[in-house]
Amino acid sequence: MTIDDPILLAEITAAFAEYERALMADDVPAMDALFHHAPTTNRYGVGEVLYGIEEIREFRKGRGGSPQRKLGKVAITVYGDSFATADAEFFRENSDRRGRQTQSWIKFADGWKVVSAHVSLEGNTH
Amino acid sequence: MTIDDPILLAEITAAFAEYERALMADDVPAMDALFHHAPTTNRYGVGEVLYGIEEIREFRKGRGGSPQRKLGKVAITVYGDSFATADAEFFRENSDRRGRQTQSWIKFADGWKVVSAHVSLEGNTH
Repeated sequence: MTIDDPILLAEITAAFAEYERALMADDVPAMDALFHHAPTTNRYGVGEVLYGIEEIREFRKGRGGSPQRKLGKVAITVYGDSFATADAEFFRENSDRRGRQTQSWIKFADGWKVVSAHVSLEGNTH
Repeated sequence: MTIDDPILLAEITAAFAEYERALMADDVPAMDALFHHAPTTNRYGVGEVLYGIEEIREFRKGRGGSPQRKLGKVAITVYGDSFATADAEFFRENSDRRGRQTQSWIKFADGWKVVSAHVSLEGNTH
């Protein structure tokens, strides 16, 4: 299996950056366009679990935007010709806790889309 | 793209269950066998970020086992012939907080392996 095909890696890196831009701007249509429109697409947020694109849309509509943040280490890997993982650390304004975001991306006919995402703040283990 | 091919879904469901068994038994070799042995394999735990299989191995060796837990909702989806996401809720003994575990699995020549995992406890958003 080819790892990190350079063309695909450039594509997914751009898609990852576009999602971050959209998140910071609360550009809900752009975020929606980067998530796979299916009942199987899930997102676990810091304070919620969401199953299916409809639950994700409802959450975004009511959220009023994400807290502003800066990215830390970002680790993106492309496996084969249609799958990538994007694991990233982030730091929110006014928070000392490290944030972590993982996304699974698939390249469909209409481009790279997130099919599963998980966002959390690092904490103690209890 | 085929979604949830029944044979592959059965395979990955069994691999997911085997990982849970290994985690609860602190069967480190079995856990290690289910993670892809590569520097690109990452695991974000409740209280740590780990990059590459070597950091994951070091963590497991020193951990002394995971807290015992029961699984809640589990959502597994297979995309195409070699990729799956497994998103699961869990509840630890003596904790009221919902746990969340997401894993990206790839079917390599030697079977299904986790290439990225993220474990967190649901919390407030600050």
